[in-house]
Formats: sequence, structure tokens, C-alpha cells
Amino acid sequence: MAEEVILLDSWVSPFGMRARIALAEKGIKHEHREEDLGNKSDLLLKMNSIHKTIPVLIHNGKPVCESNNIVQYLDEVWHDKSPLLPSDPYLKGQARFWADFVDRKNNLQVFDAGRKVWVTKGEEQKSLMEEFIGHLKTLEAELGDEPYFGGEKMGYVDVTMVPIYSWFHAYEVSGNFSFESHCPKLVAWAKRCMQHDSVSKALPDPEKVYEYVLQLRKRLGIE
Amino acid sequence: MAEEVILLDSWVSPFGMRARIALAEKGIKHEHREEDLGNKSDLLLKMNSIHKTIPVLIHNGKPVCESNNIVQYLDEVWHDKSPLLPSDPYLKGQARFWADFVDRKNNLQVFDAGRKVWVTKGEEQKSLMEEFIGHLKTLEAELGDEPYFGGEKMGYVDVTMVPIYSWFHAYEVSGNFSFESHCPKLVAWAKRCMQHDSVSKALPDPEKVYEYVLQLRKRLGIE
Repeated sequence: MAEEVILLDSWVSPFGMRARIALAEKGIKHEHREEDLGNKSDLLLKMNSIHKTIPVLIHNGKPVCESNNIVQYLDEVWHDKSPLLPSDPYLKGQARFWADFVDRKNNLQVFDAGRKVWVTKGEEQKSLMEEFIGHLKTLEAELGDEPYFGGEKMGYVDVTMVPIYSWFHAYEVSGNFSFESHCPKLVAWAKRCMQHDSVSKALPDPEKVYEYVLQLRKRLGIE
Repeated sequence: MAEEVILLDSWVSPFGMRARIALAEKGIKHEHREEDLGNKSDLLLKMNSIHKTIPVLIHNGKPVCESNNIVQYLDEVWHDKSPLLPSDPYLKGQARFWADFVDRKNNLQVFDAGRKVWVTKGEEQKSLMEEFIGHLKTLEAELGDEPYFGGEKMGYVDVTMVPIYSWFHAYEVSGNFSFESHCPKLVAWAKRCMQHDSVSKALPDPEKVYEYVLQLRKRLGIE
């Protein structure tokens, strides 16, 4: 049977980028459908009726929702090309642990901590930014001297984590600071990931992300 | 090599119960260590230095943290006895999706929604309770007419979800209502799970949970 793979996505979403990277790493031919999140398609509402969020992977008519779930699913079905999760159960458990850490640090998502920065300013923004950098430093310590979270090769945690790199520029300009001075090894790791076509093509232009953030802040009446 | 398995746990924790059920389902001999969460052991702080939470499974000296991660790990290492996750990648993805739903509904954890109920009262408590019941109804709809979330047999989502049943009594007495009238199928499902020794032995006496909640509310100055 010919495989029919559709990705419902939104260009600026770090969650969507995870699915894009995994699809590219595995060389899976698919149709990419950009969703207007202000006016979601009937297909999206039907395929992810519980959360109504992107990304959704539709494989031969059946939906798989939630970004890390999609990456694991792709890794299981297309397991031969570019395996992302280790086969050893202990290492697999460790990878799941860190991917989960990226998603939430005791109920505070890394992405959430990041997102809140856009809707605050002054001291409140500064304190959120410090918290966010604290999470990044924990991840940097876990990376240690390895080239990737996956060890010698890019793996599940790398795919989960690297999308936020496309938002770094927007944070830096808004907050007038440099991630490199706080987390040099993590920035070097992100640049290493960006040398993979699968990553560089999945991540949007950081300038466009910054414009998006500016528009978002204007719409929220913050600037 | 003889397997050394230790579980760092706390009797009232629904997260700990997940690990207990999975260990029992698979008949894994292990040492159970009850943690005093007000005075955590050095072993716990060392083995889960990132989150410092129970449960932690220590298998031959190596820690596995986070309850659903532990259940998946146990299922992978002891895969022959009582498999919990389906082997089909699509069904596995569905199980992960629903286990994730139990943990967080768009950042609002089912357990969190539940927990907040204990620190509020009056209208605020009522509205949180309605939200909590809303999540339970979504899960009930997913269960449909199957005996278990895992289909004919108890599986991963069942293990993730059933621990909260031991807290139902405390909710009901505090809120003066009945889960059975709101979610009769879900309550019937929980009773079905309780017929398994693995579940009935892992879940504490609902009266003791209620006493624990009363003490908690007193300590917080709510009653």
C-alpha cells in the first residue's frame, strides 16, 4: 500500500517543527498543510477533537496527535532509517525523561516559561527569563561534552529541544541579552543541529519569528 | 545476574501507585521504600536530582524517574508478562496520547485540577470540581463500551488512570456529590480494575486518603 502521510502544521510552532524534523530525518514523503490557527480547518478539528492543536500527523487516514507522540510514532513505524530513540530500555527511559523535562518542569513548560516572556515586561519579564535560562542550563549540564543529547548522533531529545533555537533571536532582541553568554555549549549544540538539512529546513528564519512576536505583542497591547 | 529492584514511593501518591500496579502486574520482586516527603532520603535526592519526586525505580543501581516513564520502562524490560502497551505503533500512540491526557489537559493536569480542589472552598471549589468531572467525562467517552482502556485487558492507560479512584471517596465526602451519578461507566471501570490484585493491593484504603486530605486542609488552615 502506498503510504499517505499528511502533516497539519503551523510554521512558527516549535511543536510542529519537531514533526517536520523527524519526517525529514527519515525521508518520509508527505503533504504539508499549513493551518490558520485563527480559523482552524474542519480536518484539524476532526482529527484532534480533544486538544484541537497542531501538529497532527495523518497516516493513511488515522490521526496521531501531540508532537512528541508523533516523533515516537514515526520512529516506531519507520524504524530503520535514522533511529531517534535508543533501543536499550534504560537509555530510552532517559531520553523520554529529558524530552518530558523540555515539555514541563514540574508543570512549568520550558516553552510556556518562554511564551510568558512575550506577554510581560520589566521586572516580571526579567524574572521569567532567568527561570527559562535556569531550565536551559539544566539541559546544558545534561548535554555535558557530548555532541548531541542522543550521544554521537542526533536523537529524540535533540528533535524535541532544537526547535526553540529558532526563537532565541526574538528573546535576545526583546530582552537585550545573549544566550551564548549564559549557555555557550547549548548554543554550540544548536548550531551543530542546524548543520543537518532536516533541522535547518524545518526551522523558520529567526527574523520572521521575531516579526511574529512583535505582532503578537502589539495585538496584546504590550508595545 | 539477580535483578535488584527498589521502588522509592509514598503510599498516598497516585503516581507511586502506577509503579506499584505495574510491578505487581508483572510479578517483579522488589524492595519497597516509603519516603517521608517532608524529609526526603539522600537516596531519593541523589536518584532524582532533577525533580526530587517519587516514584523512583532503581533497577540494578540505575534510576528511572517519572511514573509513566517507569511503567513504560517496566513494560519494555519485562515485556513477556502482562504486556501493558500494545505492540502496534498506532495503538501504542493512542495509549500514550490518553496517558498524557490524564497527566495534563492543555497544561491543566487531571491530578492538579483534583489537587486544587483541596485548597479551595465554596464556589471556587465547585467550579474546579466541575472542570475535573469534565475531564473524567472525556475519559469515559474514550472508554466507551470497552471493559478497559486497553480493550479486553488492563493496559497502560488503565494503570495511569486508576490510582485516582482511591481519592474519589475523599472528593465525594468533601464536595457532597457522587462520581457514580456523573460518570457511572468510569466508576464501573474502576471497580473492574479493583478486581485485579495488582490494583487492589496498590491502592490505599479510601478512608485513609480522606483522613490524609483532612489533615492537609487543616495544615493549610482551610478547615
